[in-house]
Amino acid sequence: PSYRIASIPGDGIGVDVTVEARKVLDRAAASHGFSLSWQEFDWSCERYTKTGSMMPDDGIEQLSRFDGIFLGAVGFPGVPDHVSLWGLLIPVRRAFTQYVNLRPVRLLPGTTSALAGRSADELEMVIVRENSEGEYSEIGGRHNRGQANEVVLQESVFTRVGVERIIRYAFELAKTRTGRVCSATKSNGLIHSMPFWDEIFAEISSEYPDVHAEQCHVDALAARMVQAPDRLDVVVASNLFGDILSDLAAAVTGGLGMAPSGNINPTGEFPSMFEAVHGSAPDIAGQGIANPVAQILAGAMMLDHLGETVAAQDVHAAVEKVLEEGAVQTPDLGGKSTTAELGSAVVATLS
Amino acid sequence: PSYRIASIPGDGIGVDVTVEARKVLDRAAASHGFSLSWQEFDWSCERYTKTGSMMPDDGIEQLSRFDGIFLGAVGFPGVPDHVSLWGLLIPVRRAFTQYVNLRPVRLLPGTTSALAGRSADELEMVIVRENSEGEYSEIGGRHNRGQANEVVLQESVFTRVGVERIIRYAFELAKTRTGRVCSATKSNGLIHSMPFWDEIFAEISSEYPDVHAEQCHVDALAARMVQAPDRLDVVVASNLFGDILSDLAAAVTGGLGMAPSGNINPTGEFPSMFEAVHGSAPDIAGQGIANPVAQILAGAMMLDHLGETVAAQDVHAAVEKVLEEGAVQTPDLGGKSTTAELGSAVVATLS
Ligand SMILES: CC(C)[C@H](C(=O)O)[C@@H](O)C(=O)O
Ligand SMILES: CC(C)[C@H](C(=O)O)[C@@H](O)C(=O)O
Repeated sequence: PSYRIASIPGDGIGVDVTVEARKVLDRAAASHGFSLSWQEFDWSCERYTKTGSMMPDDGIEQLSRFDGIFLGAVGFPGVPDHVSLWGLLIPVRRAFTQYVNLRPVRLLPGTTSALAGRSADELEMVIVRENSEGEYSEIGGRHNRGQANEVVLQESVFTRVGVERIIRYAFELAKTRTGRVCSATKSNGLIHSMPFWDEIFAEISSEYPDVHAEQCHVDALAARMVQAPDRLDVVVASNLFGDILSDLAAAVTGGLGMAPSGNINPTGEFPSMFEAVHGSAPDIAGQGIANPVAQILAGAMMLDHLGETVAAQDVHAAVEKVLEEGAVQTPDLGGKSTTAELGSAVVATLS
Repeated sequence: PSYRIASIPGDGIGVDVTVEARKVLDRAAASHGFSLSWQEFDWSCERYTKTGSMMPDDGIEQLSRFDGIFLGAVGFPGVPDHVSLWGLLIPVRRAFTQYVNLRPVRLLPGTTSALAGRSADELEMVIVRENSEGEYSEIGGRHNRGQANEVVLQESVFTRVGVERIIRYAFELAKTRTGRVCSATKSNGLIHSMPFWDEIFAEISSEYPDVHAEQCHVDALAARMVQAPDRLDVVVASNLFGDILSDLAAAVTGGLGMAPSGNINPTGEFPSMFEAVHGSAPDIAGQGIANPVAQILAGAMMLDHLGETVAAQDVHAAVEKVLEEGAVQTPDLGGKSTTAELGSAVVATLS
């Protein structure tokens, strides 16, 4: 088969790492008897600077014709974040009901944890982040702008539909893993949204007697990821909490250069989008020093989502082999190799 | 002089650690020619279970007559958090305009960091948490309760007054320390509240040309606390972000057993309240194994706030000496000593 993939390298190192990931994915496709038919989009802050918008008006419609979306990163100094992100990343997540943001982390061979004395098997978890509602909302505004009595409101919006589906997804996932789910809450501080989240978590956990369900305040959970990450496996969290916890989880394992992410539409009605957790890192862009591993692994997640499970596993294994051998490492891993050298090493290992 | 202190041990290990901290503070007072006149309040979840409220109706008025408030911890299984916390802790913070929640963390001698290869001088920072508004708000509610189309709103409220005063406090504090402030933001996701926060941060930083000001998205900042905490000193954050980041900062230094916290009314118009960052930990309460260090250091912060700077320093030094010697350690520190033994060791060192 052939899969139509929309590639949006975006800005900064998004461009650098996407090139390498495509090399790897094309090689994996060739070995497994399928092909990836890429179409490249220049949607980015650069485009915004020239044209005034991140993507064309019919951008979402264009993307809807693809089997998958492969995103580098967006963001550039001088372009306000609410433009770059709410003009591309967040609308795509929402228009395509990519309500799951799946962020697996684990300590890969050949890399070391920032934590003292932790082994790889203690550092493997997946953050299931709600990706369509919650704290990220356009509702709110400013009153008495610039005056002494100025007040700003920001509304979080949680729906039963939205909370149920993400929590159910987490329980289903836990059944395929260790059978443990931890829900991030903050019902002691956020007294409307989080008690509701907890209530639905309790409802759904009663449907899964075989899954060990617990909840943990987000502040304590952040501390636990550092002090006792070993009993964590599936962590389900709201949009904002999932954002924070997934960066943190990446940091306690191999770092942000290693963490992939899938924005998933579980019904398959719309395309899903795969990206690294890291941003566009303009300070190191174009220098050939960015670590492409997160983007390559995001590509593996995409192959898996497309049903090419074995190819996905092969990509994963090839990355692990290269990291384990340790001969080709980008600067963040303590080496001197370039982005392209690491990409090529993975391609060579796949062959 | 004599200072009137309201002691609210609260629940769980709050009771265990408050007793020890009082022993230490009384000893420090005696050596420095002042006294602490304690009045004890049984306000707690236990009281709630018996009487239906955490504190009496005139609780705030009673507390207003004191020079300081010394809180253990509140919270008990079976009592919903929004009762225990919004019935005591949070109303006190707000009624007394304790708009600063000051949370210094550092790696104390004789303790080890959860992070690999970090030395004590890289792990010293202070979280300046906004403590009166922001994400913790009573505004919001549920619509279509229990229905398929249920929706829950939770409103964050930020005021110019509230944001200006906390950010200014952080800059003033930075002048007395390393001259660096990092502001936690999330303007790319929360497009009303956080751009406003950033705008005021920029305004105020222009008043402090000698302070190095930077801002960092809260997700990246969480990762940075684990991967590169060394360039952080004063971190200023909203109520929710400060809550998460201060637990995390405690975890990367010596752990939650070591982290004190001051809820400070900077004008002195109302009493300030001092407590440990940790909670009531009902699972280990009453067993004599809780670590009293955080509560003792919260007491030192209280003495400092009352103007008894030298006594505060002495308490700090005595705690450090006991930890450094390592003969008396509670189980969380890897030892077998009791809460009382650690308290007594600090008292003996002070004498
Ligand atoms: C108990 C809870 C409401 C409280 C908070 O979030 O403010 C606590 O976590 C703290 O940090 O003091
Ligand atoms: C860039 C930003 C809006 C985004 C988010 O918070 O969702 C990013 O941090 C992520 O985690 O994908």
